[in-house]
Amino acid sequence: MNVATPELIALVRRADTLATVSGLLGWDEQVNLPPGAADQRGAQQAALAAVIHAASSDPRIGALLATLEAKGGAGLTDDERTIVRQARRDYDKATKLPADFVEEKATQDSRGYHAWARARAENDFPSYAPVLEKNLELVRREAAYLGKGDAPYDYMLDLHDPGLTASAVDRLFGELKQELLPLVRAITASPVASRARAAGDKLRGFPVEGQGAFLREVTGKIGFDYNRGRIDVSLHPFCSGTGSDVRMTTRYKEDQPLDALFGSIHETGHGLYEQGLPASYLGTGLGINAGMAVHESQSRLWENQVARSRAFWQHFEPRWRALFPGQTAGLGSDELYLAINAVEPTLIRVDADEVTYNLHIILRFEIEKQLFAGELAVRDLPAAWRAATRELIGLDLTSDREGVLQDVHWSGGAFGYFPSYCLGNMIAAQLWFRALALRPALEEDFARGDFSWLLAWLRENIHTQGCRYSALELVRRVTGEELSPRPLVRYLRERYGSLYGLG
Amino acid sequence: MNVATPELIALVRRADTLATVSGLLGWDEQVNLPPGAADQRGAQQAALAAVIHAASSDPRIGALLATLEAKGGAGLTDDERTIVRQARRDYDKATKLPADFVEEKATQDSRGYHAWARARAENDFPSYAPVLEKNLELVRREAAYLGKGDAPYDYMLDLHDPGLTASAVDRLFGELKQELLPLVRAITASPVASRARAAGDKLRGFPVEGQGAFLREVTGKIGFDYNRGRIDVSLHPFCSGTGSDVRMTTRYKEDQPLDALFGSIHETGHGLYEQGLPASYLGTGLGINAGMAVHESQSRLWENQVARSRAFWQHFEPRWRALFPGQTAGLGSDELYLAINAVEPTLIRVDADEVTYNLHIILRFEIEKQLFAGELAVRDLPAAWRAATRELIGLDLTSDREGVLQDVHWSGGAFGYFPSYCLGNMIAAQLWFRALALRPALEEDFARGDFSWLLAWLRENIHTQGCRYSALELVRRVTGEELSPRPLVRYLRERYGSLYGLG
Repeated sequence: MNVATPELIALVRRADTLATVSGLLGWDEQVNLPPGAADQRGAQQAALAAVIHAASSDPRIGALLATLEAKGGAGLTDDERTIVRQARRDYDKATKLPADFVEEKATQDSRGYHAWARARAENDFPSYAPVLEKNLELVRREAAYLGKGDAPYDYMLDLHDPGLTASAVDRLFGELKQELLPLVRAITASPVASRARAAGDKLRGFPVEGQGAFLREVTGKIGFDYNRGRIDVSLHPFCSGTGSDVRMTTRYKEDQPLDALFGSIHETGHGLYEQGLPASYLGTGLGINAGMAVHESQSRLWENQVARSRAFWQHFEPRWRALFPGQTAGLGSDELYLAINAVEPTLIRVDADEVTYNLHIILRFEIEKQLFAGELAVRDLPAAWRAATRELIGLDLTSDREGVLQDVHWSGGAFGYFPSYCLGNMIAAQLWFRALALRPALEEDFARGDFSWLLAWLRENIHTQGCRYSALELVRRVTGEELSPRPLVRYLRERYGSLYGLG
Repeated sequence: MNVATPELIALVRRADTLATVSGLLGWDEQVNLPPGAADQRGAQQAALAAVIHAASSDPRIGALLATLEAKGGAGLTDDERTIVRQARRDYDKATKLPADFVEEKATQDSRGYHAWARARAENDFPSYAPVLEKNLELVRREAAYLGKGDAPYDYMLDLHDPGLTASAVDRLFGELKQELLPLVRAITASPVASRARAAGDKLRGFPVEGQGAFLREVTGKIGFDYNRGRIDVSLHPFCSGTGSDVRMTTRYKEDQPLDALFGSIHETGHGLYEQGLPASYLGTGLGINAGMAVHESQSRLWENQVARSRAFWQHFEPRWRALFPGQTAGLGSDELYLAINAVEPTLIRVDADEVTYNLHIILRFEIEKQLFAGELAVRDLPAAWRAATRELIGLDLTSDREGVLQDVHWSGGAFGYFPSYCLGNMIAAQLWFRALALRPALEEDFARGDFSWLLAWLRENIHTQGCRYSALELVRRVTGEELSPRPLVRYLRERYGSLYGLG
C-alpha cells in the first residue's frame, strides 16, 4: 500500500463521517422532528453542509490525490485504485463547483420543492414550468463545471450510476419496451385480472400492531440485523444509514396490509446491502454501494423474485393467518397469491405493480432524453406526458396532477435518476437466474424459511464488493453476461404467464 | 448596537448550532441507537467535537471580543454585554486548554465511566480510587489553565452556576441542614409514615399505555408545547435540546406509576424553560439557561410545589381514576395524596423523596469541599461516606455500592455539580412564595386545571431572561430577597407538617 493511502483514507473518512451525521438528521426529520422545529433543523443542516464541504475540499486531499495518481497510479493495488478513483470523483465535485453556484442550487432546490408541491396541489403546470427551465439550466452548468458540458444527461446518469450513458440505457429500454407492451396487454385482457383485483379488495382491517410484528419477523428472518438497524414509521418509506446503523421506515394502512409488508421487504433489500458493505472500508470510496441501479436490484430481488414467490408464502402464510385469523378466514391461498401478484395499469408510478412499473420508468427516460437533446420544450411536457401515457400505459390522462406533476424528482434537479429503478429490476432478474443456476433448490430453501444461501451469495458477490465495480462490470463479473433486459422479460413471463393463464 | 456584535453572534451561533447537532446525537444514542452502532456513534461524535472545537476557537471570535471589550465594553447595551461575557467564557474555555490536555481528559472520561460501572457492579472501591485521583488532578489542571488554579472547587461550581462559590454554598447548606435534620426525624417518627408507605404499595399493575396517555395529558396541560418537542422512552430520564426542539424522556414501571408521571413532570419543568428561552437570541450567550441551579428550580417547582399539591390532584385525580378504574378502586384520595408525598430516608439519592434528597446533596457537597481542601484523601472516601450517611440520612451503609459508588458524576470529573440540585430546590421554594404573594389564588387556578398564570410569570421573569443574570442575581431581582434556605424549609414544614401531623 502506498504510504499516502492511509492519510487519504483518514481525510475522506472524516468528511464521510460528517455526512453520515447529516444523513441521521435527515432520518430524524422524517421520523421524529416536532413540526415546529423545521427552521432549526434547516439551520443545523446548513451548518453541517458547510463543515462537510470544508472537509471534502480539504486541499490536503488534492495534494494526496496528485501523489497517488502520478504515473497513472502505478504501484497501487486494485483496492487503492478504487479508493483513489472515488476520492477524485468526490474531490472534483466538492472543488470544481463555485461557491455561488452551490448556494444558488441549494436555494433553487428548496424553492423548487415548494413550487412543485403547490403546482401539484393546484394542478397548475404553467407555474412550475419556470422551475424546470431553471433546473435544466443548473444541471447543464454543473455538468460544464465538471468538464461534461457536451453531454449533461450522461453526466447526470453517471452521477447515480457511474459509467452509465444515455445510449446504453436507450438500447436496453428499447428492447424491454418491445417485450413488455404485449405482455401487459395479454395480462390486462386475461379474465384472471379482475379476480386478482377482487382478491386484493378482500384484505381489510389488519391492525397496525399485528402488521408491524409480522413484518419484523419476516425481515428479520430474511436476514436484516436489528442489532445494527431499526425500522420506524414515516410518511414516505425509505432506508438510510450504512454499516452498523441502518434505518428503514414503513407506513401502515389497515386496508392495504400488503403495502407495508412489501414496502419493508423492499427497504430490507436496501438495508441488507448497506449492512453488508465491507466494514473495514466504510467511509472510503470502496465501502459504499455501487450506484443506485445495483442498490435497487437488491431491494427488488427480495421484494419481487423472493417475496412474491409461492415458495416464500408456503413458509410465511401459516404464520400470517395465525396473526390475522378473522381477516384471512374468507381468503384462499390462491387468492392471496393473486392479490400479491395483481397487475393493473395505473397512472401513478408509485402505485404500479412490478410489471407496469418498468413502463413508467421508460416513459420518464424517453422524456428526459428528449428534454436534454433539445427535442422537447418544457412547455410541451404535459402533452408529451399524455401521449406517452397512452402509448406505454394504455390509459388517458385527465389532469397533469396524475401526469407530469406526479413525481418530486425534477423539482430538486434530480434528472437521470429514474432509469436506476428499471435497471435495478433488470439486474435483479439477471442475478436471480444466476443464483438459481448455482443453487437449483433455492425456492425449496425459501419454503423452509431459509434465506441464508441467497443472502450469503449476495454478500460475497455484491455487498462486500462495495464500489469496486460499476453496475455494468459487476453484472458481467457475477453473471458472466452483459446486462440485458431478457432475464427480466423471462422472469415476468414465467411468473405472470402461468398465473394469468397466458399462452 | 456595536457593528462588531452581529458578526460575533453569527460566529458563536455557528458553533452553537453544531453543538446542538451533537446534543441530538446524544439523545438519539439514548433513545434509538441500535446496540451494534456504538462505535459508529463514537466516531460521529469525535468528528463533530473536532469541528465544534474549531468553530468555538475561531480566531475571528477572539479578535471581535478584543474589539468589543475595549474600554471596558463602553457603549455596549446590557444585552450585548451579556453576549460578549458569555462568548468570552466559551472562547477562553475553547482556546486556553491545550489540545493534548483535552484529548487526555476525553480518554480519561471514557475510561472513568467504565471503571466506575465495573467498580459499582463488583462493589470494589479500591479499583476506582486511582480514577478519582486522576480526575481530581485533571480538574486542578483545568482550573489552572483558566487562571483559577488557586480555587479549583470554586472554578467547578462556577462552571455549572456562574458566580457561585464554595463559601456561599457552605453558608446556605449549613443553615438548611440545621432545619432539615429535626424535620426528617419528626416525619420518620410519625405514625403516618408507615401509612404513606402502605399507600404506595397499593399502586400495582398500571399498563404502560395508560400511563403514557395520562402523562402526556398532564404535561401538555401544564404547558409543554408538543409542537416544539416530544417525549420518548430511555433507560435514564432526561431532557435535551432547546428552543423549538426540546426532547424529554421517561421510563415506565407498571408497579410504580408515580415514577414516570413525576419524572416526566420534572423533565417538563426543564423543557418549559428551554422552550421559553428568548427565541431571537437562541445560540448566543443570552439565549441559554442561567445555569444548572436555575434549571433545576424549574423542574422542581413543577414537580414538587405544583404537582404534589392537593389542588393539582383535585383537578387530575378524576381523570386518573377514569383511566385506571380497577387499579385505583381500593385507594382513597387521602391515600393517594400520602403516596405522592411519602417521605422515607433511603441510601440511594435518586430514590429519595423531596425532603431527604437535600441531605444527600449536602453530604456530597461536604465531601467534595473536604476533598478539594485536602482535608480528605480519596482512599478515605468510603469511611467518610459511611459517617456522613449515618449523620445526615440516619442509616447505616453495608456496602460502597450503596455509598460512594452510587453516583456516576465523579467518574467523568463532574465535581461541583451536585450542589445545583439542592440550590434548585431552594430557588423553587423562594419563587413559589413570591408567586403566591403576587397571585394568592394560584392553587385555585390549579384546581381548575389552569396553570397559565404561573407559566406566564415564569416565562417573563425566568425563561425569557436567558443568561442575563447569575442565579443569585436572578433570585434577587425576581423575589426581592437574597437566595436563602428559609423558603424551602417553610414550604417543607407547611406541606409535610400538616400531612404528618407534626406539632
